[in-house]
Amino acid sequence: MINITFPDGSVRQFEKGTTALDIAKALSNSLAKKVLSAQVNGEVWDATRPINQDAKIKLLTWDDEGGKYAFWHSSAHLLAEALEINFPGVKFGIGPPVENGFYYDVDLGGKQISDKDLEALEKKMKELSAKNSPYKRKDVPKNEAIEYFRKKGDEYKLELLEDLKDGEITFYEQGNFVDLCRGPHLPDTSPIKAIKLLTIAGAYWRGDEKNKQLTRIYGVTFPKQEQLDEYLKLLEEAKKRDHRKLGKELEIFTFDDDVGSGLPLWLPNGAFLIEQLEELAKKTEAEAGYSRVRTPHIAKESLYLTSGHLPYYKDSMFPPMEVDGYKYYLKAMNCPHHHKIYAAIPKSYKDLPVRLAEYGTCYRYEKSGELFGLMRVRSLQMNDAHIYCRRDQFEEEFKAVNAMYLKYFKIFGIDKYLMRFSTHDPAKLGKKYVDQAELWIETENMVRDVLNRSGIPYKEVADEAAFYGPKIDVQVWSVIGKEFTLATNQVDFAQALRFDLTYTNADNKPERPIIIHRAPLGTHERFIGFLIEHCAGNFPLWLAPVQAAILPISDKFGDYAVKISNLLKKSDIRVTIDGRNEKIGKKIRDAEVKKIPYMLVVGEKEQTSETISIRRHGEGDKGALTLEQFTANVRSEIEATFN
Amino acid sequence: MINITFPDGSVRQFEKGTTALDIAKALSNSLAKKVLSAQVNGEVWDATRPINQDAKIKLLTWDDEGGKYAFWHSSAHLLAEALEINFPGVKFGIGPPVENGFYYDVDLGGKQISDKDLEALEKKMKELSAKNSPYKRKDVPKNEAIEYFRKKGDEYKLELLEDLKDGEITFYEQGNFVDLCRGPHLPDTSPIKAIKLLTIAGAYWRGDEKNKQLTRIYGVTFPKQEQLDEYLKLLEEAKKRDHRKLGKELEIFTFDDDVGSGLPLWLPNGAFLIEQLEELAKKTEAEAGYSRVRTPHIAKESLYLTSGHLPYYKDSMFPPMEVDGYKYYLKAMNCPHHHKIYAAIPKSYKDLPVRLAEYGTCYRYEKSGELFGLMRVRSLQMNDAHIYCRRDQFEEEFKAVNAMYLKYFKIFGIDKYLMRFSTHDPAKLGKKYVDQAELWIETENMVRDVLNRSGIPYKEVADEAAFYGPKIDVQVWSVIGKEFTLATNQVDFAQALRFDLTYTNADNKPERPIIIHRAPLGTHERFIGFLIEHCAGNFPLWLAPVQAAILPISDKFGDYAVKISNLLKKSDIRVTIDGRNEKIGKKIRDAEVKKIPYMLVVGEKEQTSETISIRRHGEGDKGALTLEQFTANVRSEIEATFN
Repeated sequence: MINITFPDGSVRQFEKGTTALDIAKALSNSLAKKVLSAQVNGEVWDATRPINQDAKIKLLTWDDEGGKYAFWHSSAHLLAEALEINFPGVKFGIGPPVENGFYYDVDLGGKQISDKDLEALEKKMKELSAKNSPYKRKDVPKNEAIEYFRKKGDEYKLELLEDLKDGEITFYEQGNFVDLCRGPHLPDTSPIKAIKLLTIAGAYWRGDEKNKQLTRIYGVTFPKQEQLDEYLKLLEEAKKRDHRKLGKELEIFTFDDDVGSGLPLWLPNGAFLIEQLEELAKKTEAEAGYSRVRTPHIAKESLYLTSGHLPYYKDSMFPPMEVDGYKYYLKAMNCPHHHKIYAAIPKSYKDLPVRLAEYGTCYRYEKSGELFGLMRVRSLQMNDAHIYCRRDQFEEEFKAVNAMYLKYFKIFGIDKYLMRFSTHDPAKLGKKYVDQAELWIETENMVRDVLNRSGIPYKEVADEAAFYGPKIDVQVWSVIGKEFTLATNQVDFAQALRFDLTYTNADNKPERPIIIHRAPLGTHERFIGFLIEHCAGNFPLWLAPVQAAILPISDKFGDYAVKISNLLKKSDIRVTIDGRNEKIGKKIRDAEVKKIPYMLVVGEKEQTSETISIRRHGEGDKGALTLEQFTANVRSEIEATFN
Repeated sequence: MINITFPDGSVRQFEKGTTALDIAKALSNSLAKKVLSAQVNGEVWDATRPINQDAKIKLLTWDDEGGKYAFWHSSAHLLAEALEINFPGVKFGIGPPVENGFYYDVDLGGKQISDKDLEALEKKMKELSAKNSPYKRKDVPKNEAIEYFRKKGDEYKLELLEDLKDGEITFYEQGNFVDLCRGPHLPDTSPIKAIKLLTIAGAYWRGDEKNKQLTRIYGVTFPKQEQLDEYLKLLEEAKKRDHRKLGKELEIFTFDDDVGSGLPLWLPNGAFLIEQLEELAKKTEAEAGYSRVRTPHIAKESLYLTSGHLPYYKDSMFPPMEVDGYKYYLKAMNCPHHHKIYAAIPKSYKDLPVRLAEYGTCYRYEKSGELFGLMRVRSLQMNDAHIYCRRDQFEEEFKAVNAMYLKYFKIFGIDKYLMRFSTHDPAKLGKKYVDQAELWIETENMVRDVLNRSGIPYKEVADEAAFYGPKIDVQVWSVIGKEFTLATNQVDFAQALRFDLTYTNADNKPERPIIIHRAPLGTHERFIGFLIEHCAGNFPLWLAPVQAAILPISDKFGDYAVKISNLLKKSDIRVTIDGRNEKIGKKIRDAEVKKIPYMLVVGEKEQTSETISIRRHGEGDKGALTLEQFTANVRSEIEATFN
């Protein structure tokens, strides 16, 4: 008998060689039906793999990442099985699960694949799934494995085998398909009910453009058709909200080959958003007692040797420029510059906390293949600040930082968020983690307490802290459910030592401050990318570059339009006039496309009664108002965002 | 006889071999007494040098740069003559006039020179000056010149002679001193009446640190003692106002070796000034119809090849970084990025003018020896904008740009300013100047008209325009009379062609916009450097980082101080509380040193009567006021700056 420990700590005995699926059945039949895979001693396994020793196990279902992973991995194998039937002689590269689904890279021997083929493959996969074929795992000696794929004639798998050691090779088999694979997989094909093959793309074998280009088939599968339908609807919606598409249509940003990849040029509308966000952050930070600083975008190598970013972070930095015999680097982070400002003037314990904020633009090298719109860029305008505080001030400061996050979430209508709280592993002090046992425990406790008391949803992850202190990754979800990691929030015990930062304590002795790195609004690039998707380009009124378009019905009302425009501008409302010689219907349609929140139609009636006829974007006619009424409405709508 | 043409165009005949001094005497004896040198066909000559052919001449006095140049150059020779008497065996390097005075680099054979020696030298110079010795110019064959200095044993002059061609060598002699010199010089020593030797410094021969270090003696001279006294007073005042000294004392900026030379780190007070200036500029520019943009600090080589900055401007740029096989440069100017933004969206004639503004930080390589505080730096945060307009809009746009300059001059109390208007030379079209004869004449006429009509003082300088259009350098003088070139204002016909920038004209045909480059507030670095000197660190109330310091007489009034502080903060007044356990006298003195505009003393009397006792920086007690009165005063003082 072996001891099986469950996540709640309870222990039960089972026969040696039992499987997670057996265990699930022993617990409840309905549970067993949901089990897709299992975590066994921290590793994800097939639910049908025998367990031969005492183990901690967690049964994984569709709600767990490891469950989905097995589901999509098995779906990739199902696709492969269908391909072998519909495209005899097909050769296989790799076929992993990905964030949303799976793909398989295949060599179709020069054959083209069409949308019709995809449909046929989907149909075939459904047939195969209905056979409830079990996924069977088998250890295979290397020579046998080689022999198998040599016979089959699949040079890709043979190449993959070259890198594997004898004794570590497993095959998975379902129906008539056998693959070289580490797993894990589903117990059988039956849960794969809703299937959609999404797109076809070219992909170089092993990502190397010197190699042959294979055909990559992307797909996604779900246990239920409703889930697939919902996902496809979401995909459609996400396409409409794509920040690259809207960014172009709404004239927010552009890229230019002569400027360079991953370096957005912000058009007036984008620059407006940036400056509004900065104004908000500056105001918020001023009220929270931050001081602003300005630092250059470059520094000498020695600064990054002191901070420790060089040589470890070198690959993510731009290459150095040699000037007067010194190497200068574009800054990839603002912290070292801020530390130098902290150090420039001696501090006493009464001067702390010192909170230095800057919208500093950093430059990071990302591989050109990894650049993606505003989400992965090489220039990053960060809502950065560093708080230097005493130990007795840490809790208060950390609480205030969290409160600021929550304040922003409310302003931007972010309802779903999670703080991923990464802590240290005491066994790794002095190795993976800076050797300050007491400070780790103290600050982690304080962080945990603050999170608990503030009611912020968080997830604690052991052994994932930064070298220099516990770390919080702030994850938010857009209204269509896409996840974004906006910012990290870090506690730092190490940099004060490296930069010899001190303050004079009450006993007139030098002491090291604790540093909090924080950036609630992340980078302009990612935050604006997120916002575009989150509001589908319909920015909240306070943020919209143009708040109202005045649409005169004809030339006759041009003067009245100008009069209104001037009055609204005086009330700090951002207006434009559409003075084109176009029909009012066309003017309205164009303003809708530009996603301008308010359209103010003016004609005979309005001029006579000194009113404006209001239309709201996406909502239509709202009736006539006086300028005073409209201005008051705009004001209260904006105030509501901030209260 | 030869024809002499005067600046007013009048022509008179004189004997061949006549001198400028002869001509001056012929015109008026009192004028002749003032003549120090003369411009002859554009070159500055000795007033006593014979003129042998027709010439255009301009007599130069103390009011002309060429007059001062001769005066100080002759003063350097007078110093040398005194040195030969007081330090027999002294050897001479070079002794040129400089911006304010002159210096001579000398080899004293290891002797030290003291302040007493300087006094003795001044006395000797006065004696020598009183002898009214003429400065005599003599052409000398190279072999004779070498022979002379070989006999004298002056290896420095011998080394200088090596680089000179036979037939081009002249000696100047006054009293018992002979120097190798190109001149020009005064007629005689008599005008050099007020003499001050200022400082001693070390200077490597020929500026090369591998060479011997010579002793550099700086001096300044004037025709009248009052002028010298005034100058020395100004020097004293300038020292007090030195932006490097005040920048440190007022915690405005710092430099750090690990960050790099010429790269200021802006401390909170400095960052505050920057953000206030940006807020002013953004507001001013928004009202003037500018759009803001944001562009990265780097770009590919190809951008600067298109603009033409590469290779010509390469030495002033930081070296490139190689990324993905492309060279990336730190931007040394914002224009190319802005042109790309202009080009990103097609424009019609109705869209113009397009005014793109950005506080873009540029990086320029300056030799480390030329770096100077905030005045010569390597990072430049520019108040930049580019206006793209039609020809029929140019005059209006240029007028508006000038009006903005004047607005800023008024806000910052700049009473003395000059626009140096550089025009083209029609003979050099297609060579030194872009070949658009008509546009040159048209825009120069428009610029001149605008300058004339606006009453802005300006000086027109022919043949000094930029390659791509007429240029205005904006020169301002601080209250202590120091000159600063704050900004240039340029018209550009060339970049639109290089970047293929167009708009669709009313006939539906592509046409090129004219571009105006403008930066009224220059760079933050230079402007704040200027401001610190201009107001001696006493920033105007709206700009002062702290506007009022609340000084409680004792701990007992701490709560009242906090109450006042909160109320004033609500009225957007920037206050601090000096809560130290110090005497009120000390608190006042410290606030004075920090140049905080208002000190608000609070004690028993104030608390009881709900008032504050006001002290103004540098002016002392202003009596007691209620908070409402004080707030109103602050508001009206600030409003007065902007009205």
